[in-house]
Amino acid sequence: MTDAFDYYLGIDGGGTGSRGRLRSKDGTLLGEAAGGPANTRLGVVQSQMQVDRIAREAIKAAGLPEAALKKTSAGIGLAGLHILADKEAFLEWEHPFGAIQISSDAHVACLGAHQGARDGGIMIIGTGSCGYGLVSGHSVNVGGWGFTLSDLASAAQVGLSALRYAIAALDGIYEVSPMTDQIMFRFSDSQEEMVLWTASATPAHYGEFAKLVVEYADRDDPVAVKLMSQCGSEASAIMRALAWRGINDITLMGSFAEKIEPWLEADVNALLVDGKHDAQDGAILLAGGRLPPPTMEH
Amino acid sequence: MTDAFDYYLGIDGGGTGSRGRLRSKDGTLLGEAAGGPANTRLGVVQSQMQVDRIAREAIKAAGLPEAALKKTSAGIGLAGLHILADKEAFLEWEHPFGAIQISSDAHVACLGAHQGARDGGIMIIGTGSCGYGLVSGHSVNVGGWGFTLSDLASAAQVGLSALRYAIAALDGIYEVSPMTDQIMFRFSDSQEEMVLWTASATPAHYGEFAKLVVEYADRDDPVAVKLMSQCGSEASAIMRALAWRGINDITLMGSFAEKIEPWLEADVNALLVDGKHDAQDGAILLAGGRLPPPTMEH
Repeated sequence: MTDAFDYYLGIDGGGTGSRGRLRSKDGTLLGEAAGGPANTRLGVVQSQMQVDRIAREAIKAAGLPEAALKKTSAGIGLAGLHILADKEAFLEWEHPFGAIQISSDAHVACLGAHQGARDGGIMIIGTGSCGYGLVSGHSVNVGGWGFTLSDLASAAQVGLSALRYAIAALDGIYEVSPMTDQIMFRFSDSQEEMVLWTASATPAHYGEFAKLVVEYADRDDPVAVKLMSQCGSEASAIMRALAWRGINDITLMGSFAEKIEPWLEADVNALLVDGKHDAQDGAILLAGGRLPPPTMEH
Repeated sequence: MTDAFDYYLGIDGGGTGSRGRLRSKDGTLLGEAAGGPANTRLGVVQSQMQVDRIAREAIKAAGLPEAALKKTSAGIGLAGLHILADKEAFLEWEHPFGAIQISSDAHVACLGAHQGARDGGIMIIGTGSCGYGLVSGHSVNVGGWGFTLSDLASAAQVGLSALRYAIAALDGIYEVSPMTDQIMFRFSDSQEEMVLWTASATPAHYGEFAKLVVEYADRDDPVAVKLMSQCGSEASAIMRALAWRGINDITLMGSFAEKIEPWLEADVNALLVDGKHDAQDGAILLAGGRLPPPTMEH
């Protein structure tokens, strides 16, 4: 249907940064570009501007004139797009492309991981977390309701748990360990300082402490092992929820995923499959484009 | 030392409301009054005004002229007073009393519970939580670092855990139960509605859901039982931390305390003792006043 286009642009618009990739209609890589966050919850206009900027940079990187945008079919995955009103507002845009397809960032990541198959799932574990999958092309969402209520097994949650444990350990409520000592040391051994720090802390700030938990778990710190084990158990529960909906091929993604993998419970390992392509190429599939075989990529 | 005063005023200035009580120098109850929050974190001047208002109302309730304030020694326990700067700012007040003593709300509650003894502890479990005690007159604080980092076993934490569990249960990550169904029903079975609700939810709002957890645990709801059991385990850990510091007589206080008591772990029950007086009378002891024997009170 879309073979009418010369170019296919895939954009993965995330909450902290965005990436774009331009391919020819036969799948050849022409150019790439990166930019800031495009989460529609941060403002639909800002999101559109970000997409526009990345598109023009990718065209430029490919050595093409701006007029090529009209010959381009764009596929865009956007964080925050599960809010229907945001999707409708985004689509009112007078975009520069020949055609446009939009979907959530999870959807394009899933398309990429499973090469556009109508069945397959992903579990994104980064600062936040989310399970997503397709069953006969229908989407299934598991978790991902944000830091306060959800985001099980995410770096932000692990970091917060570590701070909660450390402040209680200093009061003798829980056991002290080298990791809890190290955390309190970072706050000058002052619980009051930690309390004041949290007043302006974002999920990403809590997520920074997850690195420390991983590092100490590798050294068998008893508290760090407890937290990573809990985290692995939560991630396993998300994977079982996907499997229960009929999604039996799950690809792990996100900045914290490889740290969690060793802590998954034994039964869910059978569900894991390697991803075939990344989210930008998933977005190119959404746009109707083609990809070279995965082996050519790396 | 303070027998020079005719009257003793005790004020328990809490985060959600305050109460005052006036006694004669022989301990006779003369009058009582109640008012709004006096937490110094909400503003030292507001806290002073609240204390002033309650004092004048208690004097009035006793049928005494305002001039009696000068013949009164006031003892005041204030929420938020562990911030030293707030304590110093409060004491710059040109107060209307003959003498003034201030301390934290936990301290006066502890003095009241143990009739001014130099050894003894309390565990406050309400919307928040805190362990506090005296060992040879020296104070010991355990926990109570607020909703984000601490407040183990508190109603707010139990309520938040219940919401987190319920939203995950609806996605199939955790087991569904009559309680999780009831919680989601309150949000019209919409996870998005729950997410929007949390944007303006306070600890007290989360605490409201703790009542539901208690109610369903009484009916053996498996998820509610799990959450109350976790809560009892956390409260037990706070009590052990107090015992480890040499505090072996602990009085439970706060709006959620009696709900938690059946869930305490067996070993800590030996630490529980009934309180002798309330926090207002603890504040009267702080002011140097006398109390009638506890049996005369009820």
